Amino acid sequence: MSTNCIFCKIVAGEIPSTRVYEDADTLAFMDIGPVIKGHTLVIPKQHFDPITKTPVDVLASLMAVVQKIAQAQMNGLKADGVNVLNANGTVAGQQVPHIHFHVVPRFKTDGHHWNWAAKKYDSIEEMKKLAEEMKKAL
Amino acid sequence: MSTNCIFCKIVAGEIPSTRVYEDADTLAFMDIGPVIKGHTLVIPKQHFDPITKTPVDVLASLMAVVQKIAQAQMNGLKADGVNVLNANGTVAGQQVPHIHFHVVPRFKTDGHHWNWAAKKYDSIEEMKKLAEEMKKAL
Repeated sequence: MSTNCIFCKIVAGEIPSTRVYEDADTLAFMDIGPVIKGHTLVIPKQHFDPITKTPVDVLASLMAVVQKIAQAQMNGLKADGVNVLNANGTVAGQQVPHIHFHVVPRFKTDGHHWNWAAKKYDSIEEMKKLAEEMKKAL
Repeated sequence: MSTNCIFCKIVAGEIPSTRVYEDADTLAFMDIGPVIKGHTLVIPKQHFDPITKTPVDVLASLMAVVQKIAQAQMNGLKADGVNVLNANGTVAGQQVPHIHFHVVPRFKTDGHHWNWAAKKYDSIEEMKKLAEEMKKAL
């Protein structure tokens, strides 16, 4: 448990939450500020952050629960689709530094649009150069 | 391989792509319409869709590669943060019906904001009711 971590306190029951699912390693609970109503957070009970420092077996456990929640949103809430989102770093929009996946039910009527503004590369060479920089860092 | 699936054709090499990483099960390649330059897609080589019908071991393999790409964006592109996003259903913004995780590098200078408009529940009871509907569908 990380001191002063809101999500660790939710795991410990020191801060109340509305739980949707839990097992030995993972907790899913309602986001109280939903982008779309039904928005659920999936977190490891142990404190990890960011994704690059989270053990791969913990990521695997998280995704198994993300899948369960997505299915429950489709079947239980009659969602037409689901978004899964994860932010690492305040620049990415992360507010609580304890890794979490947002599972957001989507409805044909929800009127929501992410600001998904696809850009273009100046050239194929520019794109390939960035790919090479990532490959060298793998 | 699913007929007429763009991502299956990319896996097969029938459509060119700029590959960043691949192993026996998983492929990471550059998104040609990046939200932020460096934006990479991680897909299973086998065709699955949506997340609710993707085997959990495939999801685990995908996340292991998502983590590698996130690390490469931090180290290789000097990103300040990373977003991981997945869409299921056209209503969620999915364009290619072959499961994929977007790994988007974030920079203090990128000026990008997701349309993250947190709403409120009318009451705690409303939130708890939705949680119960999901729990019954688990």
